[in-house]
Amino acid sequence: MSETVAIVGAGLIGRAWAIAFARAGWSVRLWDADAAVPARTLATIEPLLADMAHHGLLDGQDVPAVMARIAPATDLGEALAGVAWVQENAPERVEVKRELWARMDPLAPREAILASSTSAIVPSRFTEHLEGRERCVVTHPLNPPYLIPAVEVVPAPWTSKASMDRAAGVMRAIGQSPIMMTRELDGFVMNRMQGALLEEAFRLVADGLCTAEEIDIGLREGLALRWSFMGPFETIDLNAPGGVRDYVTRYQGIYETLFPSMQRRVDWAGPVLEKVEKERRGRVAEDALAERQNWRDRRLMALAGHKRRAAKDIGD
Amino acid sequence: MSETVAIVGAGLIGRAWAIAFARAGWSVRLWDADAAVPARTLATIEPLLADMAHHGLLDGQDVPAVMARIAPATDLGEALAGVAWVQENAPERVEVKRELWARMDPLAPREAILASSTSAIVPSRFTEHLEGRERCVVTHPLNPPYLIPAVEVVPAPWTSKASMDRAAGVMRAIGQSPIMMTRELDGFVMNRMQGALLEEAFRLVADGLCTAEEIDIGLREGLALRWSFMGPFETIDLNAPGGVRDYVTRYQGIYETLFPSMQRRVDWAGPVLEKVEKERRGRVAEDALAERQNWRDRRLMALAGHKRRAAKDIGD
Repeated sequence: MSETVAIVGAGLIGRAWAIAFARAGWSVRLWDADAAVPARTLATIEPLLADMAHHGLLDGQDVPAVMARIAPATDLGEALAGVAWVQENAPERVEVKRELWARMDPLAPREAILASSTSAIVPSRFTEHLEGRERCVVTHPLNPPYLIPAVEVVPAPWTSKASMDRAAGVMRAIGQSPIMMTRELDGFVMNRMQGALLEEAFRLVADGLCTAEEIDIGLREGLALRWSFMGPFETIDLNAPGGVRDYVTRYQGIYETLFPSMQRRVDWAGPVLEKVEKERRGRVAEDALAERQNWRDRRLMALAGHKRRAAKDIGD
Repeated sequence: MSETVAIVGAGLIGRAWAIAFARAGWSVRLWDADAAVPARTLATIEPLLADMAHHGLLDGQDVPAVMARIAPATDLGEALAGVAWVQENAPERVEVKRELWARMDPLAPREAILASSTSAIVPSRFTEHLEGRERCVVTHPLNPPYLIPAVEVVPAPWTSKASMDRAAGVMRAIGQSPIMMTRELDGFVMNRMQGALLEEAFRLVADGLCTAEEIDIGLREGLALRWSFMGPFETIDLNAPGGVRDYVTRYQGIYETLFPSMQRRVDWAGPVLEKVEKERRGRVAEDALAERQNWRDRRLMALAGHKRRAAKDIGD
C-alpha cells in the first residue's frame, strides 16, 4: 500500500519534494499557508516531469502516472491526517516555524516523521516544546532533491534513534542519499563544507590573486570533476599509491602550511563584492538570471542522467 | 607549421601532458632522467588514446595520427632544441628542480616557455638565478590534464607579462582552461580551495558528526554536482533572485557564524585517520586501489565526454 506525505509550504522546495516523493510512488498532499499556492505549483510540475522523463529520471514511469499522485489540500488537518511523513518548507524564521510546528504536531499521526527543509535553523529551536518532539528532524536538501540526492538528516537532542532510522529508511526509499548527523550543528555538513570553500574563494579574489571566474574554472574544470562522482575523501584515497594514509603522510605538511593564512575572514559584502558582481553581471546580466537558472536546471538534469548511465555502465 | 614541446620527466604527469599536447597537433618529445622511461611510457599511451577516441575526446582524430606525434628523446639537449615549450615533471624536491632548470635554461630556445608541473613549490625557488628567468612559469594541472582542463599558471616575481600571455595562449590552444595567477602563493589556487574544504571535512569526521563516506555523499551527490559545471561563484549567483549581491545580503550572516568554529585544526594523521582509513579500506581494499583508480579514470573520461555533449546541446 502506498504511503502518504504532506508537503507543508508549496513553493520551490515544496514542489521539489513533491516530485521526489511522487516519483517514488508516494501519495502527495500539497498544502500552503496561502491557499492559492498549491494549485499554482501543481501546474508547473507537469513540464518538469516531462523533462525528467526525457533524461530517464522517472524510473520508467510516465508523466500522468506521477502527476496523478499529487493533489492540493486546503486544510492543514486534512493534509496531515494519516500521513507517514510531513515535509515542512516554511520561511526561514524561527517564530514562523515554532508556530507552524505547534500546529502540525497534534494534527499528524503520532508515528509520522515531522521533517523540516530548513538550511539554517537547528531543529531544537522549533521542536523543544512539542509532545511528539522525539519524531522531529531536519531533512535539508540541496535544491532540487529530485536531481540532487544528498540530504542532511539532523536530530534535535530529543530525537529518538528509531525516528532517525525511520527517516533514513524513507529518504533512501525515495532515492535520496542521507547524511545522518549524530547531533545538530550550525550549518549542518554541506553548508559548512561550502562555507569553508567560499571563504577561501572570496579571500583569493579580495587579495587580487585571481578572478572569480578563475575560481569557478578551478572547480568546474578542475576539482569538482572528481568530487562529483567520488567526493573529497575517495579522491585523496586514490591520489597516493598506498591510499589515504599514504596521502596524509605525503601531503599533510603542505596543507598545514596553508592553514594559518586561512584564519583571516574578508567581508563578502566589502570591496570584493564589487569585483565579483562586476564579473558576474558582465557574464550574465541581471535580467538574464532567470534564463540562466533554467540553463542550470537543464544541465543538472543532464548530469543526473549521465551519472545514472555511468553508474550502470562503469560502476559506482 | 606544428610546434614542438619537450616533456621533461616522462612519468604519469609527463605522459598526460604528452597526450594533451599531441591531441592538439603538437610534436612531442619525451625525455626522462631514466633513459628507459620514455619508451615504456609511450607503450602505455596507445590504449589510453583508444579510450579517449571512444568517448569523443580526440577531436575527431584517429589514434595513430596522435601517436605519430610523440617520440622518445635520449639526450636533453636534443629534446629541447627548437622547442616552443618545455614541460618539466621532475620529483617535487627543490634541489632536483634547481639543478634540472639550470641545465634546461641554456638548452632551450630563448623564446621558449619553461613550465613546471609542480603542485607544491613556488617558481621563484628554482628559477631565480637563471639567465632566461623571465620566461619561466609554473603550469600546475590536476592529473590528467587531457581530461581536466584547469591549469594554474603561476609567475615568479620576474616572469614577464609577455611570457604569461604566451603561456595562456598555448594552454588555451591545447584545450586547457588557464587560471592566470597575478603572483605566486603557496598552494596556488586549487590546492588552497581543496585544503580549505578538506580541513572542514577532517574536522567534522574527527568530531564524530558524520562519517567520511557521508562527507563524500555531501559532495558527490550534493555540492559538487553544480560546481562541476558552474563553479562556486556562479552557483551562489544563481541561488538568490537578485544574483550574488542578493545572496551575500541574505546569507553571509550564516557563514560568518560558522567561521570561528573553523579556526581549530585537527591533525589529519591523528585519531581521525584511523576512522577514515577504516572506512575507506572497508569500501576498497588496499590491493584493489589500482583497479579503483582505473574505475576513476573511466568515470572521469565519461564525465568529460558528457560535459562536451552538454555544452553543445544545452550551452556552456
